Amino acid sequence: MNAPLHSPFTLAGDLDVNGQPLSRIVERLGQTPCYIYDRSLLDQRVATLRQGLDPRIQLHYAIKANPMPALVGHMARLVDGLDVASAGELKIALDAGMVPREISFAGPGKRAEELTQAVAAGVLINVESPRELPILAAASQKLGVPARVAVRVNPDFDLRASGMKMGGGAKQFGVDAEAVPALLREIHQLGLQFEGFHLFAGSQNLKADAIIDAQQKSYALALRLAAEIDQPLKVLNLGGGFGIPYFPGDQPLTVDPIKQNLNALAEQLATDAPGASVVIELGRYMVGEAGYYVCRVVDRKLSRGQVFLVTDGGMHHHLAASGNFGQVLRKNYPVSIIGGGPETEVASVVGPLCTPLDLLGDKMALPKAEPGALVVIHQSGAYGRSASPRDFLGHPEVVETLV
Amino acid sequence: MNAPLHSPFTLAGDLDVNGQPLSRIVERLGQTPCYIYDRSLLDQRVATLRQGLDPRIQLHYAIKANPMPALVGHMARLVDGLDVASAGELKIALDAGMVPREISFAGPGKRAEELTQAVAAGVLINVESPRELPILAAASQKLGVPARVAVRVNPDFDLRASGMKMGGGAKQFGVDAEAVPALLREIHQLGLQFEGFHLFAGSQNLKADAIIDAQQKSYALALRLAAEIDQPLKVLNLGGGFGIPYFPGDQPLTVDPIKQNLNALAEQLATDAPGASVVIELGRYMVGEAGYYVCRVVDRKLSRGQVFLVTDGGMHHHLAASGNFGQVLRKNYPVSIIGGGPETEVASVVGPLCTPLDLLGDKMALPKAEPGALVVIHQSGAYGRSASPRDFLGHPEVVETLV
Repeated sequence: MNAPLHSPFTLAGDLDVNGQPLSRIVERLGQTPCYIYDRSLLDQRVATLRQGLDPRIQLHYAIKANPMPALVGHMARLVDGLDVASAGELKIALDAGMVPREISFAGPGKRAEELTQAVAAGVLINVESPRELPILAAASQKLGVPARVAVRVNPDFDLRASGMKMGGGAKQFGVDAEAVPALLREIHQLGLQFEGFHLFAGSQNLKADAIIDAQQKSYALALRLAAEIDQPLKVLNLGGGFGIPYFPGDQPLTVDPIKQNLNALAEQLATDAPGASVVIELGRYMVGEAGYYVCRVVDRKLSRGQVFLVTDGGMHHHLAASGNFGQVLRKNYPVSIIGGGPETEVASVVGPLCTPLDLLGDKMALPKAEPGALVVIHQSGAYGRSASPRDFLGHPEVVETLV
Repeated sequence: MNAPLHSPFTLAGDLDVNGQPLSRIVERLGQTPCYIYDRSLLDQRVATLRQGLDPRIQLHYAIKANPMPALVGHMARLVDGLDVASAGELKIALDAGMVPREISFAGPGKRAEELTQAVAAGVLINVESPRELPILAAASQKLGVPARVAVRVNPDFDLRASGMKMGGGAKQFGVDAEAVPALLREIHQLGLQFEGFHLFAGSQNLKADAIIDAQQKSYALALRLAAEIDQPLKVLNLGGGFGIPYFPGDQPLTVDPIKQNLNALAEQLATDAPGASVVIELGRYMVGEAGYYVCRVVDRKLSRGQVFLVTDGGMHHHLAASGNFGQVLRKNYPVSIIGGGPETEVASVVGPLCTPLDLLGDKMALPKAEPGALVVIHQSGAYGRSASPRDFLGHPEVVETLV
């Protein structure tokens, strides 16, 4: 049920991507480097999440993890809603066919134009600052459509053990919990359509108990805040934070206890706030294990006893795999070689850039590879192409495909 | 003479950019965020470099630092040559009007197509691997033009105190010094046109004595290697590595002793290898202090006693200023506020992205700023737009201008 999805079975020295050999997909694309995403792994991940989950719980996909339009279109048919972080992502979500009712828009520095666009679209706006309210009210009046709002709360607790903390203490995200009651009164006075709360404590967490703890505290905090307003609660977005295993020693997240906790909260919500839904929004967890970054060995260099596989891909396409996307210590993503020899050797995988930062694999045990072999970086479905400095040094663009 | 260029004088609370107030340039562009580059600072930097430098020494600009076509066009008229790191950069250099004779192409994983393009262009190719030689010979034969080559040497020493080491030990860059004699024989056998050596030990170094030491060792190594071949040496590219001050406590590089050293080496070369030129290639040092990244305060948030200036720009345009471009410890770039109040306060400057990585200034003493004020990040002329994940979260594109 929680089977790790990051080790697809090997198909005669190749990888299976939704029934096709990865090397054949590369031939079909006609180029490396490329990102290849596997539809069946997306389906499987959402199905696994839904299994045993109270159907009243809404699953959202956070586009920021991977905004490729075809992938978002696929996810739009699998999930109950989409979360966007800019007007650019809003357009992708609407183009993908998601109904505006099920789209929510969060972000700490929404520009006035973006807020107006969101009102025009009819999506739910997660308010992160008192500044947004009069802009939303003016847009609503000008357009003659309601401004649907939820309040993003900066909680008074942290998500323990998370890769990145996004709540607790002083933060640019959301409204401090203690300032929410005044904000709710202003929302009411301005005639905005209040729908609920959004709490997002952190991301990339592999500890189920830490996520459960944050969900329980978020629930309690939101219900305490909801008591301050007499409009009915419709949405309680408890965020995400589900991590995926990237590095040696990482254990896949155990989701069953998290589902049980969410089910209990959904049951509790049916009593505490009839008609309201629990929402969880997941980005990386939904798509991260369904993608591969594939590049080709251009040169095999031996320098003072060390083997370097120099490829046509690198940090300009996959900043996170190079260890330069917020990581404190660089670690190797899982790497496969397709078309390598039977022996194993210790090699470093580097890219074509003139910088030592351009490192995709540092002294890894890999099948011996010559020029022409494919290097596959696993766990690359999230924060890949869109989170990388693609123009750096003027190399060719990376292509993406959904298989 | 070595006056730091990173503190342009303040013009009634504004910044002077080549005689114009920065805020007016922003109005002319009609948008933030933007990168603004100052022609006069580019001119001044090259003039300062040339002052007291033996005119036989060739100054090259390494496009990787900033490939904006207008800026490269300007630099092409100021310097003696351009260095490129890909076929993409090669096109920019040629479009900028630089003669092919004065363009050199380096990079550890040049694709066969790129090598052929470089032969067709007639530029000097810095060979980094024995693999490149037969490809160059075949391209030369097919096209009927000579393949001009220099050998990029991975030296047997480090550049001390450099921000990034690119030579010494086992590296993907260049050919190990001890393997160069065999490579030279192969170059000769294949009929390639040998022109010289390229040694690049490291980058972003603020210690003149370390740079001088590396130049002297590079010179000695290159001349030792040149003795192995009977073709005349034309070019001795000693790389760059000149750093600029980014952070509190950084002292600007003292270039006078470096120039004296280069002059002595040029004099020596006139005896050791008549007709050969010393080349130095500089990227960051030429353009880094001539650029500003400018964004606008969208919101001023107070969270639990801490002030956050939330701007419309961030790490998606300026990864290095967020501390995620190879830095081990994040430090603040110099920041100015235009349109701020007279009082000073401690504030953090953040961007619109939903990630705590999106931090442009951490708890800095700044003039009090309200929405609408401009935030200027100094020292942003190099490794800015092209080295940033511009699509991340789907925000509007940053515009660049050369003033």
